[in-house]
Amino acid sequence: MKFLLKLALLFSLVISTSFASEKVYKLKMATTWGPTLSPLIDSAYNAAKMAEKMSNGRLQIRVDASNKHKSPLGILDMVKGGQYDMGHSASYYWKGKDIATLPFTSMPFGLTAPEQYAWFYQAGGLELMQKVYAKHKVMSFPGGSTGVQMGGWFRKEIKTLDDLKGLKMRIPGFAGEIMAKLGVQVTNIAPGELYTALDRNNIDALEWVGPSMDIKMGFHKIAPFYYTGWHEPASEMQFLVNKKSFAKLPADLQEILIVSMRVAAYDMYVENYDMNATAWEKMRAEYPGIQVKTFPKEIMDAMKKANKELRTELSAKSPELKEVLDSQDVYMKKVREWTKMSDYLYLKDNI
Amino acid sequence: MKFLLKLALLFSLVISTSFASEKVYKLKMATTWGPTLSPLIDSAYNAAKMAEKMSNGRLQIRVDASNKHKSPLGILDMVKGGQYDMGHSASYYWKGKDIATLPFTSMPFGLTAPEQYAWFYQAGGLELMQKVYAKHKVMSFPGGSTGVQMGGWFRKEIKTLDDLKGLKMRIPGFAGEIMAKLGVQVTNIAPGELYTALDRNNIDALEWVGPSMDIKMGFHKIAPFYYTGWHEPASEMQFLVNKKSFAKLPADLQEILIVSMRVAAYDMYVENYDMNATAWEKMRAEYPGIQVKTFPKEIMDAMKKANKELRTELSAKSPELKEVLDSQDVYMKKVREWTKMSDYLYLKDNI
Repeated sequence: MKFLLKLALLFSLVISTSFASEKVYKLKMATTWGPTLSPLIDSAYNAAKMAEKMSNGRLQIRVDASNKHKSPLGILDMVKGGQYDMGHSASYYWKGKDIATLPFTSMPFGLTAPEQYAWFYQAGGLELMQKVYAKHKVMSFPGGSTGVQMGGWFRKEIKTLDDLKGLKMRIPGFAGEIMAKLGVQVTNIAPGELYTALDRNNIDALEWVGPSMDIKMGFHKIAPFYYTGWHEPASEMQFLVNKKSFAKLPADLQEILIVSMRVAAYDMYVENYDMNATAWEKMRAEYPGIQVKTFPKEIMDAMKKANKELRTELSAKSPELKEVLDSQDVYMKKVREWTKMSDYLYLKDNI
Repeated sequence: MKFLLKLALLFSLVISTSFASEKVYKLKMATTWGPTLSPLIDSAYNAAKMAEKMSNGRLQIRVDASNKHKSPLGILDMVKGGQYDMGHSASYYWKGKDIATLPFTSMPFGLTAPEQYAWFYQAGGLELMQKVYAKHKVMSFPGGSTGVQMGGWFRKEIKTLDDLKGLKMRIPGFAGEIMAKLGVQVTNIAPGELYTALDRNNIDALEWVGPSMDIKMGFHKIAPFYYTGWHEPASEMQFLVNKKSFAKLPADLQEILIVSMRVAAYDMYVENYDMNATAWEKMRAEYPGIQVKTFPKEIMDAMKKANKELRTELSAKSPELKEVLDSQDVYMKKVREWTKMSDYLYLKDNI
């Protein structure tokens, strides 16, 4: 009987160990995006899918689109407060609450996508991001790059600085502040009303994303001048993870989560690269009148000057922001030399 | 008694299930590289490390460097034959055995790294690669991009096509065949003897990789003209997996393996981008006499012409190669337009 008891105890031990390792962890992720907003929300879906497959169902992440939680720009607050374990958004959406989070998305005249990934993963960028987000008790990881965003759609060609004076343009955020310094009348219009506003001449120009997302909006049908990018050379989306939720996961699931986010981010960059190429091919086939333009040097120089002034003003207010911007600037000096002699000079002869 | 028997059976079932899921799978991976050849071998090490952590030790991959198996260029054969379950190498090393594998590494005047990843993952490239490798009974996955490789180190500046006639240069593979068509005397010299050969004027020029790997070789100390890249704009390394070894893994470990390889590949691209920037900064600080040069248009045009001729010759021999090259050409037409208006025009104003 004693032997049987021991056997039973041994059995229960084995069974309980087995059950412990099979425990299912369920996380909830809130995203800024609507449920079908490719490529942005694809990054969230893909990370969840990979995590579930790799963990054999032990890690399940439910992705809620903005129509579910009704708070597209409140992702940081919801993850911080624990209503959600995770978030997928863009860091610059809460620059009003914490200005130091701004540069983790993209800065005007800043790093390109490969340069920025190198900064994040090889030159201390990720550590700086964790440091900035530590006060919010969340962890933050790259969530997918849009690559270069376009400068926007204009009804008329912009030839001189004077052409910008009084021009009514929808361009939000930091880029909008730069444009305002150049005399642009910056307005804010809800996305759903943009096409009509442009069509009825209530605005003269607007900035959206790039061909992959612009094509559905239809701006190219009424504003034929498509300006190349300067203000968001590599907008990086972002995963947020509540620190307590993360700490509850066993080590293997923590690694599965981190790797899933990392590869989903890279994959979004690649997906959007292809979507841009495909959408642009379609746009110019259907509307051959579209003209790709680059702002003249006079305007670029004025933008760069305004950008510097704004950065200096903000840095004076936040030493933490200054630390992040300085880190990017130092890296830029080194990495851009390599980009020039590799990608740039290669493309120059093969365009 | 019948009840006890049933209970015992139930227990054994639970235990055997538990043991099955805890079974450790051990795979061996052979690489072309020496044990410290960063960044190339890092991709293999990183994939193995992530797989082990994510599987909680259930998937263990032993990475053998070339000093162990003594067959750096025999990776495909060893994985095909089952001596190794996996390999990490570059597809163009066995173009002599299967010419259709050539374009999965990089082609002269071909796709850049983001363009090529978009081709692999969004435009059928990966499926084509699996199709080409199916006859070898192995699966093949991207294993990390070097980005743009440099055109090489030259003792004298190359100003005209005549300067290439009779020039002794170490440049292997397809690029070497192009150079031979331009009158270059292409030679093959073992890596360990390259520095001495260049120093003693036995050769006038050589092609290696890029700053990240060239810096240790020291060529910049004796051949100051560093030519920009044209022949390998995004050399993609490669993971190989024996199909039988893969089939033996449970579904969760298969997913863990595939995701580990995918993220290790992207990470290598990013690691090398940073290594190039860092090495180049050091090189030009210590040897300010280095001059970065681009081949003049006359030479570029001749290279492009020779490249086309060689591709036509080879495609006539292998319909399978032609299918891969055609797929890349079709994608190039679409994607390069986007690269031009995004990265290229952005960099043009920010160099």
